[in-house]
Amino acid sequence: MRAAVWYGAGDVRVEDVPEAPPGPGEVTIDVAYCGICGSDLHEYADGPHAIPVGEPHPESGVAAPLVLGHEFCGTVRAAGAGVTGLAPGDRVAVEPHYRCGSCPRCRAGEYNICRHFGFAGLMGHGGLAERATVPAYMLHRLPDAVSLEQAAVFEPAAVALHAVRRAGIRPGESVAVLGLGPIGLLVTRLAARCGAGRIVAADRSPARRELALRMGAAATGADLAEVTEGEGVDVAFEAAGSPDTLRACLAATRRGGRVMLLGLTGTITLDAFALVNNEQTIMTSVGYRDAYPELTRMVAEEGVDLAGIVTSTIPLDHVVRDGFDALLRGEEQVKVLVRPTGRRP
Amino acid sequence: MRAAVWYGAGDVRVEDVPEAPPGPGEVTIDVAYCGICGSDLHEYADGPHAIPVGEPHPESGVAAPLVLGHEFCGTVRAAGAGVTGLAPGDRVAVEPHYRCGSCPRCRAGEYNICRHFGFAGLMGHGGLAERATVPAYMLHRLPDAVSLEQAAVFEPAAVALHAVRRAGIRPGESVAVLGLGPIGLLVTRLAARCGAGRIVAADRSPARRELALRMGAAATGADLAEVTEGEGVDVAFEAAGSPDTLRACLAATRRGGRVMLLGLTGTITLDAFALVNNEQTIMTSVGYRDAYPELTRMVAEEGVDLAGIVTSTIPLDHVVRDGFDALLRGEEQVKVLVRPTGRRP
Ligand SMILES: [Zn+2]
Ligand SMILES: [Zn+2]
Repeated sequence: MRAAVWYGAGDVRVEDVPEAPPGPGEVTIDVAYCGICGSDLHEYADGPHAIPVGEPHPESGVAAPLVLGHEFCGTVRAAGAGVTGLAPGDRVAVEPHYRCGSCPRCRAGEYNICRHFGFAGLMGHGGLAERATVPAYMLHRLPDAVSLEQAAVFEPAAVALHAVRRAGIRPGESVAVLGLGPIGLLVTRLAARCGAGRIVAADRSPARRELALRMGAAATGADLAEVTEGEGVDVAFEAAGSPDTLRACLAATRRGGRVMLLGLTGTITLDAFALVNNEQTIMTSVGYRDAYPELTRMVAEEGVDLAGIVTSTIPLDHVVRDGFDALLRGEEQVKVLVRPTGRRP
Repeated sequence: MRAAVWYGAGDVRVEDVPEAPPGPGEVTIDVAYCGICGSDLHEYADGPHAIPVGEPHPESGVAAPLVLGHEFCGTVRAAGAGVTGLAPGDRVAVEPHYRCGSCPRCRAGEYNICRHFGFAGLMGHGGLAERATVPAYMLHRLPDAVSLEQAAVFEPAAVALHAVRRAGIRPGESVAVLGLGPIGLLVTRLAARCGAGRIVAADRSPARRELALRMGAAATGADLAEVTEGEGVDVAFEAAGSPDTLRACLAATRRGGRVMLLGLTGTITLDAFALVNNEQTIMTSVGYRDAYPELTRMVAEEGVDLAGIVTSTIPLDHVVRDGFDALLRGEEQVKVLVRPTGRRP
């Protein structure tokens, strides 16, 4: 089958890879869509960051070269021994978090912070391929009311939902979102859905600000200082990923408020006295847990449109040129989906 | 009356100061005890930090020179016009937080983060004096079952209770306390009271570690790494006040756990990637709100002993030598109380 395989920084090859039938507890799916994520871009641009090289990941047993792509959905093709509740033809969303099932966090249900933290498509083979074989526990069967186009963005939506849940937004609380990539836009949508009051959002891109208004923001600006006023918001989401934007979030947040970090890297330098004196909380969110059933319900029963962030759909053979390179050039794309088979499901 | 007046760094004078009757809404008390706090030491050693110089504080109307001391209790001597519910002879604990009553945080009941944040004894005249005149809203009448010796440590105990509450300790959660000054010891005591499971505590002083065991710690060490094991604690309290100890707290805390900062100053430098990947939360706590009634209840009904942290009681005239200088020399004191009148109430 054809697959996009990461060999090293700047070296992702769409090539034929061998296939094996699903092992015990595994399921092979025909991939309908696989989104391209910022972390895929990082691996392509200057990786490896999360991709195991040399030493295989303990849950996947895989090291590079590996098939990229962790935002995928599709249709069950074959189930391995011992798999129950899934049959060929079932439409499924993939929740690509590995989990060991036995560490203290897994036993507490917090599998997103499992000691063997990892994702299929980064720490094991993923979904930028015609077919993907994953542990059955990663699959969520979709009801008829949920299209594969919606399920294609469940993975970033789960990231956003987990952050919104962890932020503990109380009804009517004001929210700021800094950075309107896919995650920031989905945070905007899901914060609105989860009871937030006034939501303001900031990004340098006018097109993304326009999209944020459609996702539920009341006001947008190039930076947060333009759109927050008075004593600041109750909760700010840092979805831009730079230490400067963390400081902007703290400045836009009221005394006693929370700042939620979704994907910050690098070194944070903060004024501890101001942080304590303002009684602000810095929260973090990584991955997700127990999010897919709620996303399924929201889309099926409430008609929430998550796929509004999708700006293009491309074939697998063009993933490097029209996907990675286009996104890295900063073209006006938000979420690019790859349709590996070229067929519409 | 005699009072300890801050004039500048290294210049605290015990001297006679003029008195005026309480104004409208004010109450004058005979001070029974006033504790010396770390922030008093900072002001004495190299202030001003919080003390207003030149520009008076908006709530107190006072600038230096001012009477130090914010951990005090005593007996009502006279009430000004409009004061209800307090009469001469009433024994009272002083909750020295100023509050404007009209800012958004005050209206939300979060007066500890009022825009006019401040304390009597730092931003206005305090309790290191024979008598003190404060707004009536600062006073809590004590039932017979609560001694003035216990009430003398309500202020640091309120700091500890607010932090324990904000940490949201769930029954059985494990706790680490780093830094066993008065606040760290009271956090230990109150975390034990509020349902924490195993509590470990660290400080370089063997005497303070011994006291922590009496306050409810299960194990103590010179540093946290000695006493935490496995995947780390659910909640760590940073009560030592240095950026290094924050890092030690994060290292001692499990994935998904919380670190509570009580009095950190200076500049924090953190690895954002590790923070997010471990899904850790950095919480902060400043001052307190709605804590005195619960402390009163704990002491009166449960016999909780807060005054176990008191290591000496000295007369006002010796406050500089036996209080400030002794504490700054690092003698084996934890909480020093000043008894301004020399009489036992
Ligand atoms: Zn695990
Ligand atoms: Zn206020």
